Amino acid sequence: MAGSTFGNIFRITTWGESHGKGIGVVVDGCPAGLPLNEDDIQNFLNRRKPGQSKYSTARNEDDTVEILSGIFEGKTTGTPISMVVMNKTQRSSDYSDIAEYYRPGHADYTFDEKYGFRDYRGGGRSSGRETIGRVAAGAIASKLLTELGISVTAYSKAIGGIEINYDNFDKEFIMNNSLYMPDKGAVDKILPLLDEKRENGDSVGGVIECVVSNMKTGIGEPVFDKLDANLAKAIMSIGAVKAVEIGDGTNVASSFGTTNNDVFRYENDELIKLTNHAGGILGGISDGSDIIIRATVKPTPSIYVEQQTVNKSGENISINIKGRHDPIIVPRAVVVVEAMTAITILDMLLVSMTSKLDNIKKFFS
Amino acid sequence: MAGSTFGNIFRITTWGESHGKGIGVVVDGCPAGLPLNEDDIQNFLNRRKPGQSKYSTARNEDDTVEILSGIFEGKTTGTPISMVVMNKTQRSSDYSDIAEYYRPGHADYTFDEKYGFRDYRGGGRSSGRETIGRVAAGAIASKLLTELGISVTAYSKAIGGIEINYDNFDKEFIMNNSLYMPDKGAVDKILPLLDEKRENGDSVGGVIECVVSNMKTGIGEPVFDKLDANLAKAIMSIGAVKAVEIGDGTNVASSFGTTNNDVFRYENDELIKLTNHAGGILGGISDGSDIIIRATVKPTPSIYVEQQTVNKSGENISINIKGRHDPIIVPRAVVVVEAMTAITILDMLLVSMTSKLDNIKKFFS
Amino acid sequence: MAGSTFGNIFRITTWGESHGKGIGVVVDGCPAGLPLNEDDIQNFLNRRKPGQSKYSTARNEDDTVEILSGIFEGKTTGTPISMVVMNKTQRSSDYSDIAEYYRPGHADYTFDEKYGFRDYRGGGRSSGRETIGRVAAGAIASKLLTELGISVTAYSKAIGGIEINYDNFDKEFIMNNSLYMPDKGAVDKILPLLDEKRENGDSVGGVIECVVSNMKTGIGEPVFDKLDANLAKAIMSIGAVKAVEIGDGTNVASSFGTTNNDVFRYENDELIKLTNHAGGILGGISDGSDIIIRATVKPTPSIYVEQQTVNKSGENISINIKGRHDPIIVPRAVVVVEAMTAITILDMLLVSMTSKLDNIKKFFS
Amino acid sequence: MAGSTFGNIFRITTWGESHGKGIGVVVDGCPAGLPLNEDDIQNFLNRRKPGQSKYSTARNEDDTVEILSGIFEGKTTGTPISMVVMNKTQRSSDYSDIAEYYRPGHADYTFDEKYGFRDYRGGGRSSGRETIGRVAAGAIASKLLTELGISVTAYSKAIGGIEINYDNFDKEFIMNNSLYMPDKGAVDKILPLLDEKRENGDSVGGVIECVVSNMKTGIGEPVFDKLDANLAKAIMSIGAVKAVEIGDGTNVASSFGTTNNDVFRYENDELIKLTNHAGGILGGISDGSDIIIRATVKPTPSIYVEQQTVNKSGENISINIKGRHDPIIVPRAVVVVEAMTAITILDMLLVSMTSKLDNIKKFFS
Repeated sequence: MAGSTFGNIFRITTWGESHGKGIGVVVDGCPAGLPLNEDDIQNFLNRRKPGQSKYSTARNEDDTVEILSGIFEGKTTGTPISMVVMNKTQRSSDYSDIAEYYRPGHADYTFDEKYGFRDYRGGGRSSGRETIGRVAAGAIASKLLTELGISVTAYSKAIGGIEINYDNFDKEFIMNNSLYMPDKGAVDKILPLLDEKRENGDSVGGVIECVVSNMKTGIGEPVFDKLDANLAKAIMSIGAVKAVEIGDGTNVASSFGTTNNDVFRYENDELIKLTNHAGGILGGISDGSDIIIRATVKPTPSIYVEQQTVNKSGENISINIKGRHDPIIVPRAVVVVEAMTAITILDMLLVSMTSKLDNIKKFFS
Repeated sequence: MAGSTFGNIFRITTWGESHGKGIGVVVDGCPAGLPLNEDDIQNFLNRRKPGQSKYSTARNEDDTVEILSGIFEGKTTGTPISMVVMNKTQRSSDYSDIAEYYRPGHADYTFDEKYGFRDYRGGGRSSGRETIGRVAAGAIASKLLTELGISVTAYSKAIGGIEINYDNFDKEFIMNNSLYMPDKGAVDKILPLLDEKRENGDSVGGVIECVVSNMKTGIGEPVFDKLDANLAKAIMSIGAVKAVEIGDGTNVASSFGTTNNDVFRYENDELIKLTNHAGGILGGISDGSDIIIRATVKPTPSIYVEQQTVNKSGENISINIKGRHDPIIVPRAVVVVEAMTAITILDMLLVSMTSKLDNIKKFFS
Repeated sequence: MAGSTFGNIFRITTWGESHGKGIGVVVDGCPAGLPLNEDDIQNFLNRRKPGQSKYSTARNEDDTVEILSGIFEGKTTGTPISMVVMNKTQRSSDYSDIAEYYRPGHADYTFDEKYGFRDYRGGGRSSGRETIGRVAAGAIASKLLTELGISVTAYSKAIGGIEINYDNFDKEFIMNNSLYMPDKGAVDKILPLLDEKRENGDSVGGVIECVVSNMKTGIGEPVFDKLDANLAKAIMSIGAVKAVEIGDGTNVASSFGTTNNDVFRYENDELIKLTNHAGGILGGISDGSDIIIRATVKPTPSIYVEQQTVNKSGENISINIKGRHDPIIVPRAVVVVEAMTAITILDMLLVSMTSKLDNIKKFFS
Repeated sequence: MAGSTFGNIFRITTWGESHGKGIGVVVDGCPAGLPLNEDDIQNFLNRRKPGQSKYSTARNEDDTVEILSGIFEGKTTGTPISMVVMNKTQRSSDYSDIAEYYRPGHADYTFDEKYGFRDYRGGGRSSGRETIGRVAAGAIASKLLTELGISVTAYSKAIGGIEINYDNFDKEFIMNNSLYMPDKGAVDKILPLLDEKRENGDSVGGVIECVVSNMKTGIGEPVFDKLDANLAKAIMSIGAVKAVEIGDGTNVASSFGTTNNDVFRYENDELIKLTNHAGGILGGISDGSDIIIRATVKPTPSIYVEQQTVNKSGENISINIKGRHDPIIVPRAVVVVEAMTAITILDMLLVSMTSKLDNIKKFFS
């Protein structure tokens, strides 16, 4: 309940601070028999690694994961999988001044109010490095979903107000540009904007979209554990996310029933929907079409212009934040959204195995 | 885990179908000593009652709540509070035809996929009547928050694409119009639109906003149980909600760090924020300013024009939905959003009491 | 977390006080498709009904259950099953004096310390009537286990220090005597003892044993949610239970490895154990032999001799408890132990469906 | 739900196998501000270390704990505390033969049935080494309880059928003998028995008792999360425990209400109980007297005489287990019982802070 654990059956517990000894996660409830090694995890972690382009943190973080338990002879054993990334930088000198004041847009003030003090080094527990544990766990969830034929793909949909054009959607291109965008035209427009903002010490926000394809039907619980409700929690729990949308999302506010309802149809003996305004979920339960979820991410709060704020001594002061930070969180958060989506989808899949007595009888016969 | 329970300490479990014997909720973990009677609950329930205006369901539902446990001599005892509203209409005749086909935009198909069959009468468990339990529990949470000086207020922000003007915001007016809107000008524009849509058998969507005032600081857990993450789940778990936003929400996608960061300032020895783009939450923890949350609600899927769909025999068919349904869900859902917000805020307040050892030592000394 | 909920997937929430309006339970997570009606529940409830013999409470409690949700056309729908037994006796006059003092062996004092006051009528929430909800839920769990070929049987093993002789074990006899004992010889010895104790205003304790037959293998989780650990909680949570044993239980304290280890053997190509000291559980996981669990139940604390105690005004006083109470709790608690065992076994069975990836792939293919 | 997590607010998640890379625990929900360093943990871990006497495993396990997160400037920060003990022995050669057969009394067979295969090296996840995580977490819980004035003390009560004499109870002596017994006379009788059993390749069982002193009143929840129910689960979840008793435990089966009821009395204006048959818990809630809990521990299943069993090829075989194992589990399990008790007591203390509205209002005012 202290909130570092997520999930029901596939359940993850993250730990660690930005400048502590390490960052990690324990994955409990992963079914036995999944082939898994450290490369599977590292490939995911590398996608959130900074220093992949000039728009990301210049600080060289070489995050190498080690699996400490739960694997035997190359397969998951069903017991907890403990994964750890040791921190390279533990020195607190860079951050000593931020101990005394509250950075706007950061959790400095709220941590102090909640706990009485905080590990201020690099943001401590509220640092983006906390997501390392999520991504490592998401790599496992994603691999397991692949075994069931389900794929989860996230990408940047908009940055700094510039959106992708779906007519130019190029799935292959996502992994081939520093913004993880599926539209080269949008990337070409955004890169100069990022240069400008970085030069001005400013930052921009954006939107990440995630699509779950080849989804099973009947997944999700009808009331509080609706599939979309659990996805909303999963995604909103990522730092800097300020909005979560399913399917047409905020656009349904100005649409009408006649246009928003998705028409069911049989085609070649298969039930399909002619449109997918609902984003693959009806009444909290998956309908078999693609799950579509979007996260709006705020601009990096660490900016390099002078800012007004207060210190712990009760004074109004001006500050200039030092260090190197991204002018944009979105690209590095793409894999985090994908990870949290995969974890939630897998967890709800496992939960849904007990919905029908017939299935249970077949299972145990 | 089957998903009819919500909350950690203040924990609610709802049950019941639209046309079953009754609808109810068990509230476990309500602290002892809160004065409470059935009027406290009924006042909230009346706000979701249909038939309050011509835009709401004409069906006369006289939902009278009875408290069956957990109260002694006018006060909560600390043990579970069971509340029930018996259904007046249990006949299934009106609904027999919908047993055979899948209404677009409804959960008919997904329930059948999940459970093998469904209680099709009036939507069964996926009916809006399920929210009766949430609202009854929310009435208790809201009363308890009032004892702590915290108030929760929800209202319609937009309907059918027409938004309120904050310059004309009139809090008193909210409870004095059938749309629960704080702006008479907006209401005057929306009512004719609703008439038109109703006449055409169509329906509209909208936006509900909820504000938590006089909030404590330090509430919420830093990782997965962020205050905004739990609010997102709470609100997205309400049927028909397709987006949840905190503070500036989706607008931060096109804002910049320089404008989106809220400046901290001391005024009269009190720490305040000069703006509240963050919606009262930093790093998942409340900062003492107003919590602002928004839900986008889809147009009622029950529309009265002919629709294409499929039946259970595998045929493509046309249907005309009978019965009386609202052309707009928003006004009735306002109190549901308020209820779920109050429940979540209270639960996280209680959870946060154990954050500091000093407080615990004081508590037990 | 407030503690009125038990179980992970098959999850029950009980509510109600002895002399409130009613007593009930919500069962969430019951798979869809189980034939179920009120007789299934009533048959179980009747086994805990007092007034079945002169050794049980004379007060006539006619506990009639009503199912309010979760059933459609005679089958469970997968949604919460709400069951209620309305109380016949709500008058508080009989109990007004116990409001002022603390009965020895009862929860009067601890409730006041915890909550500041208590519903003192008939023990309120700490009354044995709370178990009505457990038994109603257990009836469902038991019926579902039967569909999987698993049976759960509880009986009195010892009362007032007199034990059954396993050589005379007669399973049929259990349901044919007021003590729910499988040995007529023991019953014949115990009945006179109960007469004597009742006459003296005294009470006796005893032991209830429960056997789960035809159990599946591989059920239970290896660390904290061991099958025996969850059973221990389930059984110890029944009021008046002071000890829980698995298999040989406390006797293993003085046994040796050479005699306590159960030998595995293949017989007719089937793996069996030659003995079952372990009670069917190894490392927290079922081994396919019978699960054996025992509960020691304390003597009824309501006795009819004068007792020393204190009142709320801080005085040492003598009391004589009025009303009619059983001189023995054991026979009525037999069905409660059976119910809690069935609930736990079923819940852990459902949890265990996700242990192996191979099974999950088969399930979703 | 996969069962490696225990607790509600003070919540621990253990991971690791006997011969994997390491063993560890994540403690989530530890309040901020507790002074804590690795010595606090190591002192507890040393108590479960083997090789402390000739009756314990000869294998030299030098278990050194490292804290990886959750501490800043010598105090807990409120965020998860990750602790790890790296394994020195990872070679699997010693254990290759046990891969093929099922040791009697061990979890080999049940793990294979559950997961399809197992990490057989040294017992894998079902090894006693799993308790390292529990003990490390218990060290923290114990230190925090000390800050509240509560102490938890466990000791061996009986080994191989020989019990301590309470007249000779010497609390100081507990930590000064290899059996962790409070009675030198009993130790002197038991040591020769252990020598004999070890020589014969046999093993013995025993009983561990744990006392919680200076306990607060009103702790525990009245129905399923009774203090004794949660303790029962905590203790039964320790490998090799086959019975859990509270207060007089199994003895109440043959006691009477007149003798078993504890008399309340005011002495010097303080409410006390003249006896403590109840073991400090009434109706699942603490009454302020000492909590008394007992665990019966089975004889070590690893014995050194020839045993009959089966192998995975379906054959009946004879085996001789190699390696060095304790002829008695009890002494090393004493600190595990103490740890699990401390964790449970602390967790329920924190849960109980929200029982009364008055307290909550005072807290937030």
